Amino acid sequence: MIHADAVAALRDVAALFYAKNWSLGTSSNYSVVLEHDPLRLLVTASGKDKRKLKATDFVIVGTDAKPLEPSAEKPSAETWLHVVLAQLPNVGAVLHTHSVWGTVLTDRIAENGFWIEGFEMLKGLAGVTTHEHRHWVEIFPNTQDIPALARDVQARLQGPNPLQNGFLIRRHGLYTWGRDLDEARRQVEIFEFLFEVIAQRR
Amino acid sequence: MIHADAVAALRDVAALFYAKNWSLGTSSNYSVVLEHDPLRLLVTASGKDKRKLKATDFVIVGTDAKPLEPSAEKPSAETWLHVVLAQLPNVGAVLHTHSVWGTVLTDRIAENGFWIEGFEMLKGLAGVTTHEHRHWVEIFPNTQDIPALARDVQARLQGPNPLQNGFLIRRHGLYTWGRDLDEARRQVEIFEFLFEVIAQRR
Amino acid sequence: MIHADAVAALRDVAALFYAKNWSLGTSSNYSVVLEHDPLRLLVTASGKDKRKLKATDFVIVGTDAKPLEPSAEKPSAETWLHVVLAQLPNVGAVLHTHSVWGTVLTDRIAENGFWIEGFEMLKGLAGVTTHEHRHWVEIFPNTQDIPALARDVQARLQGPNPLQNGFLIRRHGLYTWGRDLDEARRQVEIFEFLFEVIAQRR
Amino acid sequence: MIHADAVAALRDVAALFYAKNWSLGTSSNYSVVLEHDPLRLLVTASGKDKRKLKATDFVIVGTDAKPLEPSAEKPSAETWLHVVLAQLPNVGAVLHTHSVWGTVLTDRIAENGFWIEGFEMLKGLAGVTTHEHRHWVEIFPNTQDIPALARDVQARLQGPNPLQNGFLIRRHGLYTWGRDLDEARRQVEIFEFLFEVIAQRR
Repeated sequence: MIHADAVAALRDVAALFYAKNWSLGTSSNYSVVLEHDPLRLLVTASGKDKRKLKATDFVIVGTDAKPLEPSAEKPSAETWLHVVLAQLPNVGAVLHTHSVWGTVLTDRIAENGFWIEGFEMLKGLAGVTTHEHRHWVEIFPNTQDIPALARDVQARLQGPNPLQNGFLIRRHGLYTWGRDLDEARRQVEIFEFLFEVIAQRR
Repeated sequence: MIHADAVAALRDVAALFYAKNWSLGTSSNYSVVLEHDPLRLLVTASGKDKRKLKATDFVIVGTDAKPLEPSAEKPSAETWLHVVLAQLPNVGAVLHTHSVWGTVLTDRIAENGFWIEGFEMLKGLAGVTTHEHRHWVEIFPNTQDIPALARDVQARLQGPNPLQNGFLIRRHGLYTWGRDLDEARRQVEIFEFLFEVIAQRR
Repeated sequence: MIHADAVAALRDVAALFYAKNWSLGTSSNYSVVLEHDPLRLLVTASGKDKRKLKATDFVIVGTDAKPLEPSAEKPSAETWLHVVLAQLPNVGAVLHTHSVWGTVLTDRIAENGFWIEGFEMLKGLAGVTTHEHRHWVEIFPNTQDIPALARDVQARLQGPNPLQNGFLIRRHGLYTWGRDLDEARRQVEIFEFLFEVIAQRR
Repeated sequence: MIHADAVAALRDVAALFYAKNWSLGTSSNYSVVLEHDPLRLLVTASGKDKRKLKATDFVIVGTDAKPLEPSAEKPSAETWLHVVLAQLPNVGAVLHTHSVWGTVLTDRIAENGFWIEGFEMLKGLAGVTTHEHRHWVEIFPNTQDIPALARDVQARLQGPNPLQNGFLIRRHGLYTWGRDLDEARRQVEIFEFLFEVIAQRR
């Protein structure tokens, strides 16, 4: 994706997620892959207000999660997770959000994840073609050691039963990724819808 | 209704329902009858983002749920249900939405439907003139076999106690239909209001 | 208030209340006093969409709740209640809304009303100057016999402990009135806030 | 901050908080420090509609909470609390809001406060750098004697374990303060998010 288009698209997503209460209080960070090989990842800078993201509230990082060029902005500590996810095959965008229901669910559920099954909205996740699908949402422990978390996530993206579409961090928020920004955004909406349904259903 | 007007009206409804969280994540599909005999039904194409529906995100289908003209877009699998409903007498529009409360209610209620009774808002459903009305909301099992579901719905639209105004599909969403798009939209609002009331009332 | 200003102000209130989900599905009706003696009351016509009220979606009625001039629009059946309230001293506007929480509360509470006490937001009701105020919210039974309901309301507006600021109709909605439209609108916001608090507090 | 900029920024915040339902019904008041020594504090005038705050809906007060110049507007009774908070070192803005969840929480919790711990969103509070932070939210009894409350708050801002970032008044609302208006606004969003999470979590 071209730099200017990616910036415009992320500013639009940011204002939308702020309005939906998924990115309040300078929380959340988003990224779009500008180039895959070598990786050039456009990511929101640390601590920016998502309601009115400025065109300059971004940095471009490489595989080491560091700015590729000198920049007045610094990438968020969580950029490591974006970098790990952006290197998956066919990933064009990564979105990280903080919602009430994602936080409530991971506070209530003691296990390391939960199944979502039988809801039509599951079909909004890339690769899911029937509501009979059973989707595992893994919950990682929260930590300030993002490189360590990034390694744990990377391990769960490989091997048997790899993570699909997204995961949660406990009392923290959602990560999801997609072929492009539209797909990633759609998945945020799907996950958030399903988190609220599950929290409200009993 | 004229094609261009129907497209404009559906784009407006789509943005509204997206904002109300009833059509998140490319879910939902909507249709307007352009002509009744023979049927020319304008229906949203499969998998489109309802936040900003484009003028080209539609197809026109006939009674076989297939495009009447060659089109770059394909109709949604659920077009069969739209076609069945659009052939009812005096139906000008069909709206299908996916809400949190419709999903929660059909997850909680094991029976094949429920009564709504005694609420003033019932009077917003076409043909209802008093809050003392008792309205049956049928819940159909969810399925990927839409033609079979369409036949079941058609059977319940005929014979004794036919379905009125709308029905739910379990863990999936609402179908409603009206004389025109305004009436159908009004009924979405009425049903969604009542679903939330019923879910919250205990 | 001048006719054109009253129409503009009510259209603005209508769009606001629609957005807040207090006037969905053509529910609700609103009125503004144009002249007190003899009464000329501008009231929303029956069954109009509050999202985009048109300048012509109003009628002017007198003390008999009938249009003062020939009109293409007919006043809502509930105009009788507006007329009764508009004749109170110092009333300039009457607002009737339908919210989820007002409906849920009047469904849960079997008594003919409830006290609200100890909340700072009570001070937003005209005449209340301390949160220690104890406010009675009467619940009238719902009925399609609006003239009879109007007589009951009128009786409760007179005599000892007259109704103050507003009342509810069971499983139906809120009536509130104020010196002017701003005051009435403020009271809708106050009541709706408090209804949600009370419904959520246990 | 320059007067005109502060007015524009507060009008923007007011419209935002109204939309989020944190400042309904002319509730809430906000202030920005124009000058520290001697204090010139721009504060919203009493009883103004936050949806569309006018450029004239403000007064400038000094350390005695009285207008520094003759003004058609009078400062809110709660201006005393703004003055106390604005005199803290490094405070540039004070925001007071009234939300459903803040009201519900302080109605449910009998103690004089509660701990918030383990949530990532805590990092949005100034000075907090890890989700492992344990944050005390004090609940003051509501009162109409604002000078007395201001003295109690002032006492808790000094000495051991002083209040940090914000506090609640029971069945009333939130006060928060920050280096500048952006920081104070961010903290309103953080607190409100966490209040809803805590209220919903059981």
